[in-house]
Amino acid sequence: MRQHAYGDPELTKQYLDAGFGGRVGWGRRPALLVIDMAGAWTRTDEMIGSDLSQVTKSIQQLLDVFRAKDLPRYFTTMAFDASMRDVGSVASKKTPHLLKMARGSERVALIPDLDRRADEPLIEKPRGSSFFGTNLTAQLISDGVDTVVVTGCSTSGCVRASCESAIDLNFRVIVPRQAVGDRCESAHVAALFDIDNRYGDVVELDDVLSHLADMGQPAPLFRP
Amino acid sequence: MRQHAYGDPELTKQYLDAGFGGRVGWGRRPALLVIDMAGAWTRTDEMIGSDLSQVTKSIQQLLDVFRAKDLPRYFTTMAFDASMRDVGSVASKKTPHLLKMARGSERVALIPDLDRRADEPLIEKPRGSSFFGTNLTAQLISDGVDTVVVTGCSTSGCVRASCESAIDLNFRVIVPRQAVGDRCESAHVAALFDIDNRYGDVVELDDVLSHLADMGQPAPLFRP
Amino acid sequence: MRQHAYGDPELTKQYLDAGFGGRVGWGRRPALLVIDMAGAWTRTDEMIGSDLSQVTKSIQQLLDVFRAKDLPRYFTTMAFDASMRDVGSVASKKTPHLLKMARGSERVALIPDLDRRADEPLIEKPRGSSFFGTNLTAQLISDGVDTVVVTGCSTSGCVRASCESAIDLNFRVIVPRQAVGDRCESAHVAALFDIDNRYGDVVELDDVLSHLADMGQPAPLFRP
Amino acid sequence: MRQHAYGDPELTKQYLDAGFGGRVGWGRRPALLVIDMAGAWTRTDEMIGSDLSQVTKSIQQLLDVFRAKDLPRYFTTMAFDASMRDVGSVASKKTPHLLKMARGSERVALIPDLDRRADEPLIEKPRGSSFFGTNLTAQLISDGVDTVVVTGCSTSGCVRASCESAIDLNFRVIVPRQAVGDRCESAHVAALFDIDNRYGDVVELDDVLSHLADMGQPAPLFRP
Repeated sequence: MRQHAYGDPELTKQYLDAGFGGRVGWGRRPALLVIDMAGAWTRTDEMIGSDLSQVTKSIQQLLDVFRAKDLPRYFTTMAFDASMRDVGSVASKKTPHLLKMARGSERVALIPDLDRRADEPLIEKPRGSSFFGTNLTAQLISDGVDTVVVTGCSTSGCVRASCESAIDLNFRVIVPRQAVGDRCESAHVAALFDIDNRYGDVVELDDVLSHLADMGQPAPLFRP
Repeated sequence: MRQHAYGDPELTKQYLDAGFGGRVGWGRRPALLVIDMAGAWTRTDEMIGSDLSQVTKSIQQLLDVFRAKDLPRYFTTMAFDASMRDVGSVASKKTPHLLKMARGSERVALIPDLDRRADEPLIEKPRGSSFFGTNLTAQLISDGVDTVVVTGCSTSGCVRASCESAIDLNFRVIVPRQAVGDRCESAHVAALFDIDNRYGDVVELDDVLSHLADMGQPAPLFRP
Repeated sequence: MRQHAYGDPELTKQYLDAGFGGRVGWGRRPALLVIDMAGAWTRTDEMIGSDLSQVTKSIQQLLDVFRAKDLPRYFTTMAFDASMRDVGSVASKKTPHLLKMARGSERVALIPDLDRRADEPLIEKPRGSSFFGTNLTAQLISDGVDTVVVTGCSTSGCVRASCESAIDLNFRVIVPRQAVGDRCESAHVAALFDIDNRYGDVVELDDVLSHLADMGQPAPLFRP
Repeated sequence: MRQHAYGDPELTKQYLDAGFGGRVGWGRRPALLVIDMAGAWTRTDEMIGSDLSQVTKSIQQLLDVFRAKDLPRYFTTMAFDASMRDVGSVASKKTPHLLKMARGSERVALIPDLDRRADEPLIEKPRGSSFFGTNLTAQLISDGVDTVVVTGCSTSGCVRASCESAIDLNFRVIVPRQAVGDRCESAHVAALFDIDNRYGDVVELDDVLSHLADMGQPAPLFRP
């Protein structure tokens, strides 16, 4: 059996022939979504952690541009009550690492490398998709966003799920390949393939940066 | 024109004839939902506040029973980032009081009278309905709930909206009349009428308490 | 007690002082939402029907303009399986008229007066809000909509619920007063008040028409 | 790199160590969800079709048991307006096969082999997840379901997405391995691995059948 992996030409052709893998392209107003770049995922001594230093650098480059243009940025993390009752009786069985994500703990604190600003919303999400059980859809509509640049971790979990939710809602989805990561390499390349064929365009970071550089000055952001 | 009010016999008959106003009754596993009993709503010197002392007492009675039987309880409040970007450009125009609901402030802290316990989830909701942009549906399913006893404030806003979301999902909705309140009396009685005819059974607090007293011991709550 | 009614100056002031009742105004790309203008609601011999001929005329005027500018239009109706299992055990108890809304029946067929075109989506909704259990959010985002003009029936049920869902998502909501109707007058004026203070701007039909007339030519609609 | 595949012992251990891959097990009231077993997916001359005859046989066995016990069954298919406006401008670009799924066409008609009964709801879904833009959550709650047995196609698309939505809501998810299929084998085994580690228990069909055989007689189904 072939490796299920992004970039495989034969698989790519098979999907194209079946009516998948089209390009969504860029809209007029992109936002940057930074998923779960917090302690539990970025420290290699953590149960679900792995080395995401290259992903971090890629996101820093994207943040620089989105901040310079004052285009919308959103961060997510996971967080539950100390009692963990809000994880739920079923989700906690399948993925017990959720029970370690206590609100206010270091595990769920964003890494300082990304230097989140006060006006960049931090969304606490209870599940993989950044849209499930959160206010993100309303924020994207508020900001007039039509394109979501999805970054962070993990490619095969929260990133993939967020891409699917976003395109389900007809947001264009762009995934800069170097700005997403996963603790498992085979899951990473399989998820990139599925994302590119079903949920969003996987593109090179440099191409994302140069597209953004070429954009005109956007409308001002909502700040009450 | 008639006052649009709960209890009006002529309006009630008109709605019954039109196929509204049936009774949903009790299921087997009720939960208590306590909506927005926090500073901003309960202090009379607050913009949106009013005297809810009788509502508080009613909720205390309900909490006593739900705690004694260890049936599920959930509390809600509203809370936004200090930047208020997550309120959104449109919602903040229509209801500018939202811009005062900063996470961590006294305005959104639950009143101590209700003595929330560590294992009673506190749900920060961004809108009227306790279900919009929150994890509440998943928590109700986790706890095997089929009936939601809705209490708190305001009857014509968050209470009504939460009742509608709950019955939309086929949860039975029970509203103990004395346990909900509103700063505006005409809105309160109009909302009670609409709730009773469209979204849930408005019943007397005593009847709720005696139904609960007659229930057998429920299955244990999920606590990880 | 005062009648809870749209236009009451004292109530309006009370709500304004409490941080409600702001104006959302128009965005750049409005859509027209026409709710439940089908047999069951428009025929006076139907259980939930009433005379909506003036509402129909108002909607016709709006459709003329939205069609001339090729701005997005969506229609809703309700519809369930003949078995009615999909209504659900609780919703069917509270509002038994739902059990009469069989897919394909005359009751749920749009009135011919509105002459729905083939490229105007018809959304079958299972509940009051046009957003619950439907694909409407994704369609609005697809069409780049930022403003929803809400029309049809009933003001206190599906119209109000749809307005709330729309502003929850940060869509601007405009309700042309003459283009919404309700079988119950006291419910109608109470709902208009609540909508205007919480969910959207209630405005005169003429003002809506003249705003639309003044708009430039919009971007072309998505048609695959 | 290892093949990302269900059953790989090393990957399984890696995920278990990271806090994934727990067992959710059975609850008390299972439902059967049969996803997209319609012409477009089951005919080998269709763009997205493949040979699903073994999957069909497995589902028939499951249907026999769920019908004999009168446990809830739901079918899904996809279906859009003839105009295809409701697909949306973005989803139609990424997955253009959606534009062939016209309501009422043979492509979206369920295969007769499964002999859907009049009281088994048919849910038309606009996206991969059976929960997105549909009434399924409300139907599951109506029927008191706590466990969803997910079957049909495609494993890496609609099946995986539906499993994720279900466990997000704290429904227990069981996937009988022989009752799900995919046109792409590498996608199938990768998705089974991810489902088993993140979203639901992948189990052998025989084990599902024998668990169901051992269940007592369930409470009667809601039929209005």
